[in-house]
Amino acid sequence: MAASPKGAPMSASIELIREKARLLRIHSLRATTQAGSGHPTSCLSAADLVAGIFFHAMRFEKMRPNSATSDRFVLSKGHAAPLLYAALAEAGAIPVARLLTLRDLSSELEGHPTPLVPGVDAATGSLGQGLSVGAGLAIGAAKLEKNSARVYVLLGDGEMAEGNVWEAAAFAAHYGLDNLTAIVDVNALGQSDRTMYRHDADVYRRKFEAQGWQAEVIDGHSMEAILAALNRAIATKGKPQAILARTEKGHGVSFIADKDGWHGKALSRDDLARAIAELGGAEEPPAIERRSSARPALPQPAEFPAPEPPAYKPGQQVATREAYGTALKKLGAVNPTLVAVDGDVQNSTFSEIFGKAYPERFFQGYIAEQNMVGVAVGLAARGHTAFVASFACFLTRAYDQIRMAAVSRSNINLCGSHCGVSIGEDGPSQMGLEDLAMFRAIPGATVLYPSDAVAAERLTEAAARRAGICYVRTSRPKTPVIYPNEETFPVPGFKVVRESPHDRATVIAAGVTLHEALKAHQELKTQGISVRVIDLYCVKPIDATALGAHVRATAGRVVTVEDHYPEGGLGEAVIGALAEAGGVLSAAKRLAVTGLPRSGKPDELLDVFGISAPHIVAAVKQL
Amino acid sequence: MAASPKGAPMSASIELIREKARLLRIHSLRATTQAGSGHPTSCLSAADLVAGIFFHAMRFEKMRPNSATSDRFVLSKGHAAPLLYAALAEAGAIPVARLLTLRDLSSELEGHPTPLVPGVDAATGSLGQGLSVGAGLAIGAAKLEKNSARVYVLLGDGEMAEGNVWEAAAFAAHYGLDNLTAIVDVNALGQSDRTMYRHDADVYRRKFEAQGWQAEVIDGHSMEAILAALNRAIATKGKPQAILARTEKGHGVSFIADKDGWHGKALSRDDLARAIAELGGAEEPPAIERRSSARPALPQPAEFPAPEPPAYKPGQQVATREAYGTALKKLGAVNPTLVAVDGDVQNSTFSEIFGKAYPERFFQGYIAEQNMVGVAVGLAARGHTAFVASFACFLTRAYDQIRMAAVSRSNINLCGSHCGVSIGEDGPSQMGLEDLAMFRAIPGATVLYPSDAVAAERLTEAAARRAGICYVRTSRPKTPVIYPNEETFPVPGFKVVRESPHDRATVIAAGVTLHEALKAHQELKTQGISVRVIDLYCVKPIDATALGAHVRATAGRVVTVEDHYPEGGLGEAVIGALAEAGGVLSAAKRLAVTGLPRSGKPDELLDVFGISAPHIVAAVKQL
Repeated sequence: MAASPKGAPMSASIELIREKARLLRIHSLRATTQAGSGHPTSCLSAADLVAGIFFHAMRFEKMRPNSATSDRFVLSKGHAAPLLYAALAEAGAIPVARLLTLRDLSSELEGHPTPLVPGVDAATGSLGQGLSVGAGLAIGAAKLEKNSARVYVLLGDGEMAEGNVWEAAAFAAHYGLDNLTAIVDVNALGQSDRTMYRHDADVYRRKFEAQGWQAEVIDGHSMEAILAALNRAIATKGKPQAILARTEKGHGVSFIADKDGWHGKALSRDDLARAIAELGGAEEPPAIERRSSARPALPQPAEFPAPEPPAYKPGQQVATREAYGTALKKLGAVNPTLVAVDGDVQNSTFSEIFGKAYPERFFQGYIAEQNMVGVAVGLAARGHTAFVASFACFLTRAYDQIRMAAVSRSNINLCGSHCGVSIGEDGPSQMGLEDLAMFRAIPGATVLYPSDAVAAERLTEAAARRAGICYVRTSRPKTPVIYPNEETFPVPGFKVVRESPHDRATVIAAGVTLHEALKAHQELKTQGISVRVIDLYCVKPIDATALGAHVRATAGRVVTVEDHYPEGGLGEAVIGALAEAGGVLSAAKRLAVTGLPRSGKPDELLDVFGISAPHIVAAVKQL
Repeated sequence: MAASPKGAPMSASIELIREKARLLRIHSLRATTQAGSGHPTSCLSAADLVAGIFFHAMRFEKMRPNSATSDRFVLSKGHAAPLLYAALAEAGAIPVARLLTLRDLSSELEGHPTPLVPGVDAATGSLGQGLSVGAGLAIGAAKLEKNSARVYVLLGDGEMAEGNVWEAAAFAAHYGLDNLTAIVDVNALGQSDRTMYRHDADVYRRKFEAQGWQAEVIDGHSMEAILAALNRAIATKGKPQAILARTEKGHGVSFIADKDGWHGKALSRDDLARAIAELGGAEEPPAIERRSSARPALPQPAEFPAPEPPAYKPGQQVATREAYGTALKKLGAVNPTLVAVDGDVQNSTFSEIFGKAYPERFFQGYIAEQNMVGVAVGLAARGHTAFVASFACFLTRAYDQIRMAAVSRSNINLCGSHCGVSIGEDGPSQMGLEDLAMFRAIPGATVLYPSDAVAAERLTEAAARRAGICYVRTSRPKTPVIYPNEETFPVPGFKVVRESPHDRATVIAAGVTLHEALKAHQELKTQGISVRVIDLYCVKPIDATALGAHVRATAGRVVTVEDHYPEGGLGEAVIGALAEAGGVLSAAKRLAVTGLPRSGKPDELLDVFGISAPHIVAAVKQL
C-alpha cells in the first residue's frame, strides 16, 4: 500500500510484507477470541494473500480508501472480516485500537463487513457475490470514469460453487476488465466438509481460462509467489486475471491448521496465547478505542436538474414499461452518472430506449440477474446512478443480492416489468406475482407502482433521486394516460382519482387494477353506489394517516385490488398500516391473484383470477 | 422413441427422424400462429435436436412417460414449449389434435411447459434451471432407484449465462451422473441481441470440460451428427455429457432464419403458409381436440407410518434447528423415500444428523442454493420426499427456483435455519428476516415456524406428509421445551399457550418471540394485566375464524411479535386475515425488526430491534 500517484506499485520490502502477514494473523486471532466467535482459520489461510494485496499491489489513499482513483478490495469471503479489518488497520485506514471491538453492538466492525467500515464498498457474507461487485467497480473505473484504478477480489474456494461467481466471470471477460483481479483462497475446507475439489486448484484455473481469464495456480503461503503473481496480473492487458492460491486453513498455527471442526470457532484465551507464541509473539494490543471509525459519508444519489417532462395526451395508450424507458433516456440527458444494466430483455423492459441513446452507459448483462445486481452495487458504490431492469419475476433470481445491497446501504434502482397475470399467454413462469412482497421486505426500500405513463416517468425520476433500494414495478399492457403531464408524485403518497362526499367505500389499487377500479367505479355509479378510488402508486412507504383519513371518510370500508399474490403485497401493506392506525377499518376485502395462474388472454386472466372490475363491484357491494 | 425394454436405443430410420423434425417445425409454427404469440424461431433451431432425442435416443412408455424407468426430457429453454408439445404428440403421449389449443386458457399446453402435460416433470420458462432438475432426476434414478433411466436436458445458449447452469454442471460431474446428457441449442440469438459467444460453441465445450464433463461440438442441423453424438453420450461412463450444437434460429424457413427481431413472434397466417410450403408442405391439421390430455396424477407425498415420537423433558434447552435434524432422522427410518440436500451447512442446519444415519440418501450440494432446489424438484418428481436446508437468508438465493417449484406443483420441503436477529454476532448478512414474506408469497405453500423442539419434530413430519412447497423456519438459539412429547400440531393451527377469562389482549408470536411473549405474560401478570399468548406455529395457512375468536375474546386487542421484518411476515398475515374476517380487531400493534440490524449479542439485538419482552409489555399497555 502506498498513498502514491499512479504508476508501478510502490512495494514495501518482502520482509516487511511478511511481517504484516504475521500481524494480520495475530490481529485476527485476538479479535475473534475477544468476540468469542468468528472465523479465525478462514483468516489465517488468506493472511499472506491479503498482505500481498494490501502492502504490495494496492494503491489507495488511506484516509479516502473509497475515492474514485483508489484501488479497491472486495472481501467476497466475508467471514474473513477480521483479516480485512486487520489489513485496514495496518494500512492506516482505521485505528489498530478498534480491532478488539469486533462483533460488538457498538462497533462498525461487524461479523461480516459492511460499508460502514472505511474501504468497504459492499457488504459481503452471503458468499459468491463479491466478484460481481468487483466487476461493477472495475467497469465503472475502466469504462465510465476511465481511470486506472484496479480492483482486487478475494474469494474462498467454497463459494466458487455459487453460480453467481461464474456469471461475474463471464461478464468481466466479455467486457475485457483487465483492471480486475480475483484471488481465490483454495484452503480446501468448507464449513462442514472438504470442498468439492479440495486442493485441486487446477480445476478452478481451467474454469477461469474457459471463461477467457488469465489464470495461474500458486502457493498461497509463498510471499515471493504471491507478489510475482500480483505483478503478472497487473501487467496483463485485455482480460481479467485469476490467481488460484493453494493455502491451508488455519495456516501458521499448528493445532488448528488444516483441521476439521475449526470452521467458525474462536480460540480460547489459552489457545490464543499458544497460537501467538507459535506465530513469533507480539506486543500487547493497544487499549480498545471505543470511538467508532465508521466512514464519514456513504455514497448518496447524484443531484441533477429536472428532466424533460412527460409529453402524453390524456387517454393515450402507453405501457408503463415503455414510459420507464422513455424516462431513463430523459434522465440520462440531465444526469451523466445514470447507467443502466439489462439482462437481454431490454426490448421488453424498454431499457433499450436509454441504451440506444447512451450506448456507453448501457451494459448488456445477458441472462444473469444475480450478476447484474452485483454489478449495479459496484457501480453505485462509485457514485453512479444505476438502474437494473428485467421481468419482475426474474428479479426473484437476485433476491439474495438485493437483500445484500440493502445491507450495503446501496442506492441501486430496479425495474421489474411484466408484473402480474396481465401479461397473458406466456403463463405463470413469466408473471411477477411476488415482487411486491419481495421488495417490501427489503429494509428501507421504496416500492413504486405507476398506473400510467406520466406516473411511470415521474416515479422513475423519484427513484433516481432517492437513497436506498428503489423498485419500480411496470406493466406489460398498454393503459390509458390518466394524469396531466405536470402532475407530481411525492414519495410517500397516493392519488385520489375518484372522490365524492357520498363515497361508501374506498377502493385502493395500482397499475392495471387501477384501471379496473375505474371501470368498477363507473359501473357502481350506474347502480347508485359511489366509491372513492385511490391510486397507491407508492406501496412503500405508506402515509397511513393520510390514507386512513380517506378510508374513515368512507365509513372504514376498504377494498384493495392488486395484480399480485395476496401475501405481502399492496393489500397487506394497506390493511397492516390502517389496522395499526387504529379505529379506521370497519370492513375490508382484499382482491388479489389467488392460486397459480395459467396461460390465457390478459382480460380473461384478470377475471378468472379475481381482480377485474366485476370482482371489485361485487366486493364493494359485499361490504 | 420406443416403448421398449431397456437396452440399446431402438432407433427409427434416419429418414423417419428427419420427417419427424420437419413435422415438429410445422406443428410449432402452426400452434404459435393459432395462438397469436409464442417463440416459433426458438423451436425451429432445436427441432432436429429434439427429433433426434425423442425418436432415436429416448426410451419411454408413451402412456406413462413419467414412470420410474422411462427416460426423461427436460426442456430448460421453456419458451420452445410448442416444440416439446409437438414431440410429445408425435411420440403418442398427447393427441396431435391438442396442439392447436396452445396458450388457450382451457389448455394444459401453456406458453411454457408445466407438469400438467404428460412427460413434463418440472415447469420451465425461467431460464437456466432445467439442468438442476435434470440432475435431480438423474441422481434419483442412478443413486436411489438404481435403474438405467437416462435424462436429456435441452438448453438454449442464452441461458448458459445463468450461474444456476454451472452450479448444476459442477454437481452432476461431482456425482458422476453419466445418465445425464445436456444438449445446448447454440443458435447465437438471444431475445434482444446476439448471445455473448454467438456461434463460438467451443467456449461452451471448454466450460463443460472444465467442469469435468464429456463435451463435443456438432452441427445441430445434421441428423447424422446428432444421432452419432447421442450414441456417444449414451456410451459414456462415469461423467455427464454435453452436446454443443451449432444451430440457426428459425432454421428451415428462409425469411426468419437467423434474423434479428423474430424472437417471441408468431407468424401471420400468410407467412405460415409460405413457411409450410418451404418446409415441404403438410396435410391440414386435425380438428382441434378440446378435451384436455393433462397427465392423470401429479406426484403425491409418500405415505409412511408414524415416526418415533419426540423425547424431550419439559424445560430442556434445545434449538429447533437441532430438533429438525433429529426429526429428519426419525422420518428417514419410516419413510424410505426421504432424502436430504444441504449446502455445506449441515452442521448448522443439523441436516447432518440425517446425513450420518442415511449417507446414501444425503446429498452434499455444496454452496449452491439454486441448484439444491432444482435437484430437489427433480427428486420430488420421481416421488422422493426431498428436504433442502440452508440458513433461511441463503434460501433467498433460490427464490426464483422456489417460485418455479410452485409452478411445477412440486412437493419439496425447505428448512431455513438461523432466522432473525436472534443469531447474534454474525450480523445481518446471515439473518433470515424476509423468509416468511418470501415463502408466504408462494402459492399453495405451507409456512411452519416451531417454537420448541417438540413442535419442530412434529412440524417437520407435517411437512413431509403435506403436498406443495413446505417451509420450516428454525432458530439458532436453544429455547426451552414447552410442549409435552405427545402434543400434536395440526396444519393449519395454533396453540393457546396462556389463557384466562380476564385476558385483555392477545399476543401472537412464534419461535424465539414466543418465549419473549411468555416472559412478557409473566411480567404483565405481576402488574395485574392478564394477556392471552398464542403460538402461531403455522403462519400459512391461517385459520382466521379460530384465531379471530380469541382476539374477539380479548376485546379485539392484538399484539404480534416476530423475529422478521414487518413486511409480509407473521404480523401482516395475522392482521390481514383478521381484518377481512370483519369486526374482530379493535386495536393492533405489530412488533417486528425495523431497520437494518447489526452484529451483537442475541438478547441485545432482540431488545434493540424492538421484539423483546419489555417491548411486548409496552405494546400491550399502549393498547
